[in-house]
Amino acid sequence: MDENILHYPTVALDEENGALVILDQTRLPGEVRLLRLTETEEVRDAIYRLQVRGAPAIGVAAGFGLYLAAKRIRAETPDAFLEALRRAKEFLNAARPTAVNLSWALERMERAALEKRDGPVSAIRERLRRECVAIYDEDVRMCRRIGEYGLALLHDGDGILTHCNAGQLATSRYGTALAPIHLGRERGMQFRVFADETRPLLQGARLTAFELMADGVDTTLICDNMVSQVMQNGWIQAVLVGCDRVAANGDACNKIGTSGVAILARHYGIPFYVLGPTSTVDMRLASGAEIPIEQRPAEEVTEMWYRERMAPRGVKVYNPAFDVTDHRLIAGIVTEYGVARPPYTQSLADIFRRKEAGEAF
Amino acid sequence: MDENILHYPTVALDEENGALVILDQTRLPGEVRLLRLTETEEVRDAIYRLQVRGAPAIGVAAGFGLYLAAKRIRAETPDAFLEALRRAKEFLNAARPTAVNLSWALERMERAALEKRDGPVSAIRERLRRECVAIYDEDVRMCRRIGEYGLALLHDGDGILTHCNAGQLATSRYGTALAPIHLGRERGMQFRVFADETRPLLQGARLTAFELMADGVDTTLICDNMVSQVMQNGWIQAVLVGCDRVAANGDACNKIGTSGVAILARHYGIPFYVLGPTSTVDMRLASGAEIPIEQRPAEEVTEMWYRERMAPRGVKVYNPAFDVTDHRLIAGIVTEYGVARPPYTQSLADIFRRKEAGEAF
Repeated sequence: MDENILHYPTVALDEENGALVILDQTRLPGEVRLLRLTETEEVRDAIYRLQVRGAPAIGVAAGFGLYLAAKRIRAETPDAFLEALRRAKEFLNAARPTAVNLSWALERMERAALEKRDGPVSAIRERLRRECVAIYDEDVRMCRRIGEYGLALLHDGDGILTHCNAGQLATSRYGTALAPIHLGRERGMQFRVFADETRPLLQGARLTAFELMADGVDTTLICDNMVSQVMQNGWIQAVLVGCDRVAANGDACNKIGTSGVAILARHYGIPFYVLGPTSTVDMRLASGAEIPIEQRPAEEVTEMWYRERMAPRGVKVYNPAFDVTDHRLIAGIVTEYGVARPPYTQSLADIFRRKEAGEAF
Repeated sequence: MDENILHYPTVALDEENGALVILDQTRLPGEVRLLRLTETEEVRDAIYRLQVRGAPAIGVAAGFGLYLAAKRIRAETPDAFLEALRRAKEFLNAARPTAVNLSWALERMERAALEKRDGPVSAIRERLRRECVAIYDEDVRMCRRIGEYGLALLHDGDGILTHCNAGQLATSRYGTALAPIHLGRERGMQFRVFADETRPLLQGARLTAFELMADGVDTTLICDNMVSQVMQNGWIQAVLVGCDRVAANGDACNKIGTSGVAILARHYGIPFYVLGPTSTVDMRLASGAEIPIEQRPAEEVTEMWYRERMAPRGVKVYNPAFDVTDHRLIAGIVTEYGVARPPYTQSLADIFRRKEAGEAF
């Protein structure tokens, strides 16, 4: 695999030793532990336990994992081989049934295998190898394009605020919201990044701070409630965040707290950008009001990372995992096809016309 | 002492047994432990260890503590008695040298004793008893007045958001920001309160949720980054916060995160009120820009309540303890003399004229 920003891969294929290599994200930031997974059961467990997380990274891990499974299938006829492959695919797919990139990558792998259903088995294996590497390469290329378009919005030395982790640790490389920062770093630029810790699960403190520091980026950790003060100090020139789902009008669903950051950015006159692949834009949704907000368990808030109870027993807790940022607060939505600008109903539709026409990004 | 909202006192005098009774706030919310302190050393330790906290509560505890010390002074002449009293006062005053209410209460006690310097000693003791009870009573009355003025701004059934703890646990009774809620509760009103957990030290989760639940208030705990979502849901009709220092133009310094809440409230069209006694208004300061912001140690953020490291070693942390809310975001400043409304330069000056003219509140 090519050299990695972090000096550790989020997810990589070790072809020679027949292993999927991942950085165990459940151990971060305390311990940097690379896992070498050779059995399909191990790959499935790693996805289930969030040792690898982030929709794009899960898709890539599943692709590599299914290819490694295919290498061990002993069947000699294409039919028997494809039947065993289907079982391995379904086994992996059950790891996180709701993660769309998991099933998307596995379906894609199976379709590739079926192209070679006439055999021989070695040709099917080779086709699978090419497909999983393609999934990885496309993810890297998509992130790099998002990084390029995002970088054009920034100036060397800018102060940047980000929320949660939409970085390399959620993708094959570069990340989405953090891609411009990593790409700028490759080119010798330096930004001063403020990372919100992102309660309750602390992805900002645990993951974003880790990956930015590993890349030599000037990183300052703050609590979520310090954003206003940091902006008031004049330290922030742009806000970069990822997204989980974007509606056709530009309303953007992302980690809880994002909409508050967008309102503060508007108050202080700071541009607020959403970065993500077109696969997260759901053109069937007219607005963010149609996006259901997942509610999570109270214990995430009351027991402080599951170790000590910091709130009275029985206290009611409201713990939404996401919120929706009104499109009117968003200065631009950065995709692998370029930056959509308001009005988004038009600019996002333009991007989708290009994508559906098969235009390369 | 009179009946207490919490069924536990924040601070109380047990005259019969010669003890200062406090609720140990370092044990909340896990354990409700009343401490009975009879020795001056114990009183000083409790203040030093933050077992009693909040400027008004510290002042009251110091007054009671000095009176209890006076009861044990064996001197038979007024001069010897006053000399021993001065030593006890200085001993207590060293507990938290920067807490203004501590020295204010102790000075007030000493002045009262000096009024009776001609003796006999029993008359000095009696004068001290009256003074410490007066400090307590005035604190309760001040909080109740703030509660009355604040309650007039609310409607039964309102959803209220608060940040940090400016409640009974920081005063003798009722609190400041939470006084309208407790007072409304006494009158059979019910509010639905959302308490920000208030990172990094979690006063909202540990103290506000505890004291509101003890008073039977419908309380929901949220992370600081969930404020925007709660407001977007239409659940908040008013924001009530305390203050640490208010400038003559109405700029209000309070717990970090307060200014962000004020900006969100403005965005969603929700009135934002600051509640506090006139003693926190510093008329010598023209604006909040003159208020220095205390910076606190990184470990408060990175080590999650001092138990587990949740951020990379060596990460830079910005950890301001307070921020300043622009007076233009504040719908009213509620004091024991009434509600100051914009323009604050005029309304606060009016209140100070009444106060300095000796008008009762």
